[in-house]
Amino acid sequence: MPVRSIVLASGNPGKKAEIEQLLAPFGTRVVTQVELGITEAEEPHHSFLENALAKARHASLATRLPALADDSGICVDALDGAPGVHSAYYAGREGGRAERDARNNARLLAELAGADSRAAHYECVLVLMRGPGDVRPLVASAQWRGSIAREPRGTGGFGYDPLFLPEGMAQTAAELAPAEKNRISHRGQALAKLLELLHGEP
Amino acid sequence: MPVRSIVLASGNPGKKAEIEQLLAPFGTRVVTQVELGITEAEEPHHSFLENALAKARHASLATRLPALADDSGICVDALDGAPGVHSAYYAGREGGRAERDARNNARLLAELAGADSRAAHYECVLVLMRGPGDVRPLVASAQWRGSIAREPRGTGGFGYDPLFLPEGMAQTAAELAPAEKNRISHRGQALAKLLELLHGEP
Repeated sequence: MPVRSIVLASGNPGKKAEIEQLLAPFGTRVVTQVELGITEAEEPHHSFLENALAKARHASLATRLPALADDSGICVDALDGAPGVHSAYYAGREGGRAERDARNNARLLAELAGADSRAAHYECVLVLMRGPGDVRPLVASAQWRGSIAREPRGTGGFGYDPLFLPEGMAQTAAELAPAEKNRISHRGQALAKLLELLHGEP
Repeated sequence: MPVRSIVLASGNPGKKAEIEQLLAPFGTRVVTQVELGITEAEEPHHSFLENALAKARHASLATRLPALADDSGICVDALDGAPGVHSAYYAGREGGRAERDARNNARLLAELAGADSRAAHYECVLVLMRGPGDVRPLVASAQWRGSIAREPRGTGGFGYDPLFLPEGMAQTAAELAPAEKNRISHRGQALAKLLELLHGEP
């Protein structure tokens, strides 16, 4: 893999941990833009793809290094795809990540009270810019299908993992071992596709 | 095809003519944003994909209609991929389209004087936003490989067509009949892929 050291266009430690583990076999060092003192990009919040591109471009221009950006969220059928691109701040911007996660999960449960369907999917779009002059950024995306549990369970992962029941499984995503989640998750699958694109290049 | 009427996020009459012809079998009406009085989007000019997304988002937000955007250009090997995303304004912003095209072609010939390789490809990225709230815009891209002729020939098409010799052909793109160009061009191929994506949707 030609990319030896990349900036992760995120300050989310949960994303960093997952991506570090996924890239470990390739000897790629992951540094977050927050660790480099770069502020986060404005997100247009229209689509995962536009957000991921904006984040990767911002980090790559600011650091002059290869940049990897992830935009992801959970889309719930009965809520017309909400919270979607607003997943991180579904219940407001106040507080730290753990607080926001707990509030987001509580709001999702409340919104789904009485809903006929609890079907949902996680979605992840990854963008790799191999440098600030990259005119052909690599894009990969994946979905992870499942449903929303009646109450949160588990302490692994982050975000909506305690409520997300992957299709065909009895455990929530937060009850899976990290390596198991990475193998089947939206982020793990998107990264596998991205690595395929990267290896397929001349 | 569910999209009956779309805004083309462009004021380029050459692009409009090609896309209209390509979409005619589906009964889709094409209106340009210029015809609707919408100004063109700022292009970040980093990559075809970011430009096309910015154009489609701008047109869709301004018109509240489905929007199709094309970003395209010619990438020349001996010039490290230039003019690339700068194809339209390679020789400056002054003058009308025909003047700019002629100046761009002249500059490209000058830059390539004495070059070992004249290999080049046209590239096109299309983005379809089915409305201002589309969180999953469709993206398709294609390349058209060929080389740069020693002098311009032909009056069809637009842009660098008089200089572009498609691989395996003796005619320039500007000497092809419109239907023939559309069948094999970067734009025609990208639109075929986009229609496949659209038909593959639930």
